Amino acid sequence: MGEDYKSMWMELGLDLDGHDALLNVLAQAYNDIFLSQKDRPETMSYFDFVMSEVHGLRIRELLEEKKTGRKIIGSYCVFVPEEIALAANATLIGLCSGADFATDEVEKLLPRNTCALIKSSFGFKLGKVCPYLESADMIVGENTCDGKKKSYESFKSLVDNLYIMDLPQVKSEQGRELLKNEYFRFKKAVEELTGVTITADSLKDAIRTVNAKRAAVHRLSLLRRHDPAPISGLDALLANQIFFYDNPARFTQSVNAICEELEKRVQKKDGAFPAKTVRILLSGCPQAVPNWKLPAIVEQSGAVIVGEESCVGERGCRNLTDDSGNSVDEMMEAIIDRYFKIDCAIFTPNGERIDHIKEMSKTYRADGVIHYGLQFCQPYLMEAIPVERALEKESIPCLRIETDYSMEDAGQLTTRVEAFIEQLR
Amino acid sequence: MGEDYKSMWMELGLDLDGHDALLNVLAQAYNDIFLSQKDRPETMSYFDFVMSEVHGLRIRELLEEKKTGRKIIGSYCVFVPEEIALAANATLIGLCSGADFATDEVEKLLPRNTCALIKSSFGFKLGKVCPYLESADMIVGENTCDGKKKSYESFKSLVDNLYIMDLPQVKSEQGRELLKNEYFRFKKAVEELTGVTITADSLKDAIRTVNAKRAAVHRLSLLRRHDPAPISGLDALLANQIFFYDNPARFTQSVNAICEELEKRVQKKDGAFPAKTVRILLSGCPQAVPNWKLPAIVEQSGAVIVGEESCVGERGCRNLTDDSGNSVDEMMEAIIDRYFKIDCAIFTPNGERIDHIKEMSKTYRADGVIHYGLQFCQPYLMEAIPVERALEKESIPCLRIETDYSMEDAGQLTTRVEAFIEQLR
Ligand code: SF4
Ligand code: SF4
Ligand code: SF4
Ligand code: SF4
Repeated sequence: MGEDYKSMWMELGLDLDGHDALLNVLAQAYNDIFLSQKDRPETMSYFDFVMSEVHGLRIRELLEEKKTGRKIIGSYCVFVPEEIALAANATLIGLCSGADFATDEVEKLLPRNTCALIKSSFGFKLGKVCPYLESADMIVGENTCDGKKKSYESFKSLVDNLYIMDLPQVKSEQGRELLKNEYFRFKKAVEELTGVTITADSLKDAIRTVNAKRAAVHRLSLLRRHDPAPISGLDALLANQIFFYDNPARFTQSVNAICEELEKRVQKKDGAFPAKTVRILLSGCPQAVPNWKLPAIVEQSGAVIVGEESCVGERGCRNLTDDSGNSVDEMMEAIIDRYFKIDCAIFTPNGERIDHIKEMSKTYRADGVIHYGLQFCQPYLMEAIPVERALEKESIPCLRIETDYSMEDAGQLTTRVEAFIEQLR
Repeated sequence: MGEDYKSMWMELGLDLDGHDALLNVLAQAYNDIFLSQKDRPETMSYFDFVMSEVHGLRIRELLEEKKTGRKIIGSYCVFVPEEIALAANATLIGLCSGADFATDEVEKLLPRNTCALIKSSFGFKLGKVCPYLESADMIVGENTCDGKKKSYESFKSLVDNLYIMDLPQVKSEQGRELLKNEYFRFKKAVEELTGVTITADSLKDAIRTVNAKRAAVHRLSLLRRHDPAPISGLDALLANQIFFYDNPARFTQSVNAICEELEKRVQKKDGAFPAKTVRILLSGCPQAVPNWKLPAIVEQSGAVIVGEESCVGERGCRNLTDDSGNSVDEMMEAIIDRYFKIDCAIFTPNGERIDHIKEMSKTYRADGVIHYGLQFCQPYLMEAIPVERALEKESIPCLRIETDYSMEDAGQLTTRVEAFIEQLR
C-alpha cells in the first residue's frame, strides 16, 4: 500500500500521519506473527493479499460501490443482520477495532476502565485512521453490554449517522418480540437509506450469500478437528476476521479454496503443527484485527488453536438462516430465529454458551480451553467463572486470561500460557 | 445490641464472629461520622436508635411478622415495586450493601473488577453477616447493569429463593411493555409467595403507604434548599438509607417529625452548618449503609450536601404513584408509569437524568455537583462525562469522583474535595 491511495485517504478525511503509523504497526505485526509461520497453506496467500490491501484495494472497491449508489453500513456486533443490508443493496462491514489509538483523546470521552474494544473504536474515530468508518453511510450501534450501550451516547457526537438498535437481555418470548420489532425497524431504516425496497427475491439471495459465507467458514472450522491440525489457529482466526469486511462472494470462494487445500493436507496428514501438538480452544471476547496477541502467544508457545468460541469465530457464524421462506415476512422470521440463537454473554442466563463450549471442546478435540476476557468486559469476565466451573466438571482444564491491547503483559501472559500448555502435555 | 439477639442471629444462620466484626465497624463509623456532628436536629435521635438496632430490633420485628405468616422480600434495586409487595401483605426490604466483606471468597465468584456494591452483596451472603438477607423469603434480582445481571447467575447458587426481574434498556413503547409484563409477572409471583390475592383496596392502601413515605422524604429534601441548610447531608442521607428497611408507617411519621423540627429551624435561621456554607449536590451511584465515606469527607471538609441525585435519594423516591385508579389494572398501570420514569443510567439515552441534575442544582441552590461513581460501574462512570459537560454549559462546577468502599483513597479524596470546595467559595 502507499502513494497510490494517499489521495483516497485524504478525501476520506483520514489523518495521514496517524494512519501511516497504524499501517506500519499492522504490517510489522502481520509480518512477525503471520508470515513467520511455518507450513502455511498456500491458499492463505489470498488473505495475505487482503491484509496487505486492507485499507487500500478494499476501500477503493467500497468507494466504487458508493459511486454506483450502493450504501455502506458499519457495525460493531454480529447481531446486525447482514442479510437485511445485502437485500437492500447495501454492504455491511464489521468495524470492531483491535488496536489502541489516540488513548488520551479517548479517555476524555470514556472512563479509563472501559474495555479495549470500545476504546479502540473511539480511538479510530478520534484519530481519523479507519477508512471503513469514514466510508460508512450508516453506523449501527447496539444495546449489548453497558460499555457499548452507554458509549454510543457519546459516539453520537462524533459521527452523524449513528443508528441504535435495541436488543433483549433475556431469551424470553418478549425478548424475541423485541428483536423482531428491532429487525423490522432496521429493515425500514436500511430501505430508507438505500431507497431500495427489500423483496422476497432479494432477501432470499442475501440469505444464501451470507449462508454460503458461513458454510465456508464452518467447513474450514471442521477441518481443524483433525490431528495434525491442517491450519494454524492464527490463520483460521484471520479468515474469521476478514469475514467481516471482504466481499462476501469472493470471501466464500477463497475460504472454500483453502478448504480444498486443507482436505488434501488432512489426507496426507500434513499439519500446520506436528501431530500430537497440544490443542487449545479459545473462548470469550471477540478478537478484531490486529488483536492477535493471545493467539500468537499460544501458538508460539507450541500449542495449536483448534477453534474460536467467539463472535469472530463460531459464535458469530454458526447457524445458517433458513432460506425456505416464500415471503419477506417468512424470511424475516427465519432471520430473527437465527440471530436469537447467538449465545453472547450479554444474555442472562446463558447456559447455551457453556454447552457450546463443551461441545466445541469435544468436536475439535481440544486438550484445554483458554478463556479470553478483555479487561473491564463484565459480561465475559463474569461468565468466565461459571464456564471454568462447568469445564472442570467435565475434566477439561481451563485457563482464564484477562488482558487488553497493550503489550505490557505479554511476558506474564506467555509464562501463564506456557505453564498451562505444559500441564496439558 | 448484643447478647439479647445472639440466639436470633444464630437461628438465622449468621456467622457470629464475622457479624460481630461488622457491627463493631458499623458502630464505630456511626459514632465517628454521625454522632460527632454538631447542631443536629433532636428528632434525629430516632434514626440513631434505628441504626443502633439495625440488626436487632428491626430483625426481631421482621421475624415476628414472619411468624404471623407475612413474607419478607429482599431487593437490590428501586425498580422492584414496594406497592406490589405491600398489597400482597409482604414486606419489602432493600438489601443494597455498603461495606466490603469476605473479599477473598467473593473474588472466587466475581471478577476483581466488579463494583463494590455487587461485591458487597456477595460478601454479606458468603460471610453470613446480613440478617435481612437471611430473613428473606424471596430475593429479587433485576437485569439492570451488566454487573448485577450477570452476577445473579452465580448468586443463584448461593440462595435458593432468587427471582429475576427483566428490565428494559430503552424508554420506548416496547420498553414500557416489557416493564408492564414483568410487573404483572412479579405481582403473580408475590401472590403465589404470600397466598394473598391483591385487591383494588389493598393496592390502593399500599400505594398510599409508599406515597406517604416518599412525600415525607421529599418534604425533608425541600427543606434543604434553605440557607443555612437545617440538616446535614449525612443525616439526610441516613433518612434516605433507612427508607429501605424501616417499617413504612413509622418511618413516615419519624421523617415528618424531623421536618417539623427543621421547619422551626428554618424560621429561626438555625442550620446544621453556618449560612453561606458551600453547598454541594451529590449525584451518581446509590450509597448504601454504611457507605458514608464520600459524604463524610465532603462535610468534614466544610461544605454541606444539600441533595442526593441517587437511588438512595431523589432518583429513587421522587414521583408519587397515582392512587386514583379504581381497579387493580388501573393502579398497576399507574405503578408502571411511576417506575418507568426512574432515570437510572442503565437506560439509553438518559437525558432526563441530566435535566434532573440541573434542576436539582437549581432547586437546592447547589454551588457545585460532585458526581459519585463506584469504580467499575460502567453505567454511571460513562454517564458522568456527559453530566459534567452539561453542567459546565450551565456554569455549574462538577467534580467527578471514582471510588470504592476501601479507605485507602480517603486522603486523596479529601485533597480533591477540599480543592473543589475551595474553588466554590
Ligand atoms: S460478543 Fe456480544 S456484543 Fe460483542 S459482537 Fe458478539 S454478540 Fe455482539
Ligand atoms: S468486549 Fe465486552 S465490554 Fe467490550 S464491547 Fe465486547 S461485550 Fe462489551
Ligand atoms: S442505580 Fe439503577 S440499578 Fe441501581 S438501584 Fe437505582 S435503578 Fe436500580
Ligand atoms: S453501582 Fe453501577 S455497577 Fe454497581 S450495581 Fe449499581 S449500576 Fe451496577
